[in-house]
Amino acid sequence: MEGEPLSALCTPALVVDVDKVKRNAQRMIQRCNKLGVQLRPHMKTHKTLECADVMTGGSRRCIVVSTLAEACFYADHGFDDILYAYSLPFDKVERCAALSERLDLFQVLLDHPEALEQLKNRPLRNGRQWHVWLKLDCGNGRAGVLHSEPEALSLARAVSLTDGVELTGVYAHCGNTYNCRGVEQIHAVAQETTTFTLQFMEKLKAVGITCKSSIGSTPSCSHPVDDMSQLSEVHPGNYVFYDTQQSVIGSCCLEDIAVRVLTRVIGHCPHRNQLLIDCGWCGLSLDGAGKLPTGYALIEGHPDLKLVSMTQEHGRVEPISGPLDYSKYPLGSLLTLIPYHACATAMMHPVYYVHSEGRLVGKWTPTRGW
Amino acid sequence: MEGEPLSALCTPALVVDVDKVKRNAQRMIQRCNKLGVQLRPHMKTHKTLECADVMTGGSRRCIVVSTLAEACFYADHGFDDILYAYSLPFDKVERCAALSERLDLFQVLLDHPEALEQLKNRPLRNGRQWHVWLKLDCGNGRAGVLHSEPEALSLARAVSLTDGVELTGVYAHCGNTYNCRGVEQIHAVAQETTTFTLQFMEKLKAVGITCKSSIGSTPSCSHPVDDMSQLSEVHPGNYVFYDTQQSVIGSCCLEDIAVRVLTRVIGHCPHRNQLLIDCGWCGLSLDGAGKLPTGYALIEGHPDLKLVSMTQEHGRVEPISGPLDYSKYPLGSLLTLIPYHACATAMMHPVYYVHSEGRLVGKWTPTRGW
Repeated sequence: MEGEPLSALCTPALVVDVDKVKRNAQRMIQRCNKLGVQLRPHMKTHKTLECADVMTGGSRRCIVVSTLAEACFYADHGFDDILYAYSLPFDKVERCAALSERLDLFQVLLDHPEALEQLKNRPLRNGRQWHVWLKLDCGNGRAGVLHSEPEALSLARAVSLTDGVELTGVYAHCGNTYNCRGVEQIHAVAQETTTFTLQFMEKLKAVGITCKSSIGSTPSCSHPVDDMSQLSEVHPGNYVFYDTQQSVIGSCCLEDIAVRVLTRVIGHCPHRNQLLIDCGWCGLSLDGAGKLPTGYALIEGHPDLKLVSMTQEHGRVEPISGPLDYSKYPLGSLLTLIPYHACATAMMHPVYYVHSEGRLVGKWTPTRGW
Repeated sequence: MEGEPLSALCTPALVVDVDKVKRNAQRMIQRCNKLGVQLRPHMKTHKTLECADVMTGGSRRCIVVSTLAEACFYADHGFDDILYAYSLPFDKVERCAALSERLDLFQVLLDHPEALEQLKNRPLRNGRQWHVWLKLDCGNGRAGVLHSEPEALSLARAVSLTDGVELTGVYAHCGNTYNCRGVEQIHAVAQETTTFTLQFMEKLKAVGITCKSSIGSTPSCSHPVDDMSQLSEVHPGNYVFYDTQQSVIGSCCLEDIAVRVLTRVIGHCPHRNQLLIDCGWCGLSLDGAGKLPTGYALIEGHPDLKLVSMTQEHGRVEPISGPLDYSKYPLGSLLTLIPYHACATAMMHPVYYVHSEGRLVGKWTPTRGW
């Protein structure tokens, strides 16, 4: 298959432009170098070894994951310094302990005193310590203890005072940048998250605690504010692929997007003024419903077309206005979808087809599950 | 793991009640026996060997699949008489030919004269014939040639007159039953699809063509109309699991639903009157958005709770009204989600955990891809 054109692929197929992946990764590395912060790339978007190598510059160190299955997968393949950035799940403490005892540096995250109790109840062997990040909610409104609440400081102190547990850092995810439109708004959220985090670090310092700090999201790390240089780390992930959503937010240009779903025309439906394609939600995901004027995706080179609906293995495409010119879309011809949300689309594929300038260079196989 | 309770599972986890699976399968077999039609169960919902065995009563014969990957998977494991019920994709003709030459009975489907040309251009070896179903659109509005158009009859004739190709049957999917609410509406669509299909069979007979006929969808086959006894086959699939959507349509009762997603409480957010659970769209899919008063799923035993939003690995749950009583949902406690669409939810899981009366009895591993 290597050396063949993309048109040799059966569809639907997730295709990854390795040159764009490398460029996106390199730019983030350079941006972080310039800021003077450690980049800890997130693996959740792709969950592959090859892309992790690109994002870590081959070091296989200093990554963040969203599931314990990812943590184990990377650990099994020689990665280390892994942060499992997910509020410690009580059903997975033993598996976390095993990784902590096995790796040089496995790190967990928590946002509740009961999670600390779970760690106390499972002291690590061989003189090892639990490495713990405190999850702070700086306005994102998902996990984390509210930065402004006294509980945040008291939990940080409790962690740092517990035998066998080390407060490694303070972690905030600014997923609220996904509501931004344009760099100005991204900067505002990045600034707010950074300010709240740094204020919290000051509070910690005032009670004699020093540790690392990290914020992250692809929009904020694509357009960092100067104050982010005072953080220890950042942890974006999606940037290695980017997607239509990120272009709408303003994190990237359309040309930066490294992933596509190849699909073929499998039906002409003139009585409905529609085409059928062989990509349904099984190949694209349902993410992005109602978000784009072109429907569930952009159809590359055809801004006049809209992916209006999908079932498991079918997509219905119609013109945004006017009658469809079927002669332009013969049965069997290829169309290229630029996904709304690369994380969601990649998740649907058991293998990614990797190309350079349209020629296949390999396959990447992601890990799945929890 | 066998014999352990479901609470031993790490979450999120897709759990399958094997007794309900067997009961749902048995009822469909009995329903079809009573009607006197051949059941050709669809594999797309689960894509596992074990569930296929239950649905075929152990015969490993007479199934329908939605992807060629499924066809190959089942063929590799001793299944035969496989219908690939997807408008012949021009990129997969060679793979279809290989299956046709290898199995006793591999069947394809088409709805366009160009697809017939593709088959002519790839005659089968060893005196084999292509077994072809004509896809008819009887009002569903997706794939298929419109039952009322002269092109339908002329395509059927062209297939039956082509050397090396056999017109095996006429196939209609009544996916439009998914818009029904209640048995009366289901009956109306089932009747309409059946009538249109049987009328088309009469037209074929008038020009000297006889072949099989098949319609299907879980709603119509859960509540068949008498005239369906005049068909050769039916091809439902989802019924083996059922789901909340099917209960809303009226195909089943909530008690018939054989799948759940187990999830755990991982966060308390009193400032937002919310819980966080460890199931996001990665464990449930985004199917069903806006369809249920309880959000993306039913939370079993908690009709007062709503799954209001999900990100990749997090779900936000809040009361439909009033304040949340957190003492009822300790961190680490289990909640059980009844999915809106079992096909979409199952697709997100690399393994299904199978239980009988709450005790684990095994794991099923689905196939993926195309």
